[in-house]
Amino acid sequence: MGKPKILVTNDDSIHAGGIKALVKSLMPLGKITVVAPKLPQSGMGHAITLNRPIRMKKVDFIEGVEAYECSGTPADCVKLAKSVLFKKKNPDLCVSGINHGSNASINVVYSGTMSAAMEAAIEGIPAVGFSLLSWDEAADMNASANIAYSLIKKILNADNGKNLLLNVNIPYMPLEDIKGVKVVRQADAKWVEEYEEREDPMGNKYYWLKGQFVNFDDRQDTDEFVLSNGYVSIVPIKFDLTAFEEIKDIKKIFD
Amino acid sequence: MGKPKILVTNDDSIHAGGIKALVKSLMPLGKITVVAPKLPQSGMGHAITLNRPIRMKKVDFIEGVEAYECSGTPADCVKLAKSVLFKKKNPDLCVSGINHGSNASINVVYSGTMSAAMEAAIEGIPAVGFSLLSWDEAADMNASANIAYSLIKKILNADNGKNLLLNVNIPYMPLEDIKGVKVVRQADAKWVEEYEEREDPMGNKYYWLKGQFVNFDDRQDTDEFVLSNGYVSIVPIKFDLTAFEEIKDIKKIFD
Repeated sequence: MGKPKILVTNDDSIHAGGIKALVKSLMPLGKITVVAPKLPQSGMGHAITLNRPIRMKKVDFIEGVEAYECSGTPADCVKLAKSVLFKKKNPDLCVSGINHGSNASINVVYSGTMSAAMEAAIEGIPAVGFSLLSWDEAADMNASANIAYSLIKKILNADNGKNLLLNVNIPYMPLEDIKGVKVVRQADAKWVEEYEEREDPMGNKYYWLKGQFVNFDDRQDTDEFVLSNGYVSIVPIKFDLTAFEEIKDIKKIFD
Repeated sequence: MGKPKILVTNDDSIHAGGIKALVKSLMPLGKITVVAPKLPQSGMGHAITLNRPIRMKKVDFIEGVEAYECSGTPADCVKLAKSVLFKKKNPDLCVSGINHGSNASINVVYSGTMSAAMEAAIEGIPAVGFSLLSWDEAADMNASANIAYSLIKKILNADNGKNLLLNVNIPYMPLEDIKGVKVVRQADAKWVEEYEEREDPMGNKYYWLKGQFVNFDDRQDTDEFVLSNGYVSIVPIKFDLTAFEEIKDIKKIFD
């Protein structure tokens, strides 16, 4: 068996600092193929491109790494990579990120980074998404790349099932200040939105989304809690959205 | 207490047949406000618009119904409606649909219809998404509108928690052939994709997504099973994606 085949993607585009740092850190661990969006796709959720064709073009990226930019969404990148580049065979792992900004708690449902990882998992490819708790485009990716390397090394050495799908978030601080990693649950937190109403020169209203993140969850086994205490959070995720615990009560409504 | 306030949205756009049929059927049950995308948003997943302003414009729709078209995604419609039209108070219910095409099983993760419903649920608004198993834009919405009416009537009469979030799919057949409704789980099914490679006049490759839906699930308590047997499927959904059952094993990898 040769080196593990690792597909790397993201949602901030192939030009983002996070994906370069991620690829450099993972190069010793396997044969990397990069397929990432040509343009930033933040907030795209689990979008797929149905009504227009997708383009994919080989580009220069990092010496020794095969890389493609794709006109589609993060989920498109994974689908197209599997179908065209891997000729419908699965790579050994898909890694998405390093995202510029948190995908902890409710952010997972809006996240292009995690939608790429989820699409891989749907295809049966073990997948991990990494996000750094800084929206700064020029954020220092040193510590997070280092952590990505050590976590992916452990994952490749472990005997993982096909269902591996992890949402990893990393506090923005020097490596020596990070206290460790914690496997936890998604916190019950959400964005409390406001829209700023403006008027264009023609007198028509338009709205800018503004939001404030509020954590309603005081449990200690959540991603938000451990992140705010200096730990890396790892939340195992699934794409079966059934609320099994509700089935009994819901049945009563329709009996 | 007055009539229930019902927010109606969809992802096929305000011009689709499904939302018109839905609104007409629900009018006897409450005060309807429609906020729906100006343009079709299928396959948009849980996208939200961050990097450009959103426009919302009052439009003629159905006599007696306040309706707005919105330049954003289905999730944007819900956020903006709550924030601007309902002045941050929650309506009593959000209903999304009737989607032209199935959102059963794995389709839920790509679905704009269900992302609108999920966004409402995140806001604490009970929410239901309806989808008809026909992609035909001119599909007969009679039976499905009838079913939407009777299910929403039951939901409004029930003492629902804030967590109500239902993915309802309806087989495409005359009302008298539909055998009933079943509260079930999401089937383990997926799209097996192919991309058709073409070349543009300049000699550059591009790809069209094609897919075939495959159900790997032989359990009888799934949406796919009951739909194929002539029942309406109701799957309670949640937005906490934590795979609790995996936490123990995942911890072992990183110990």
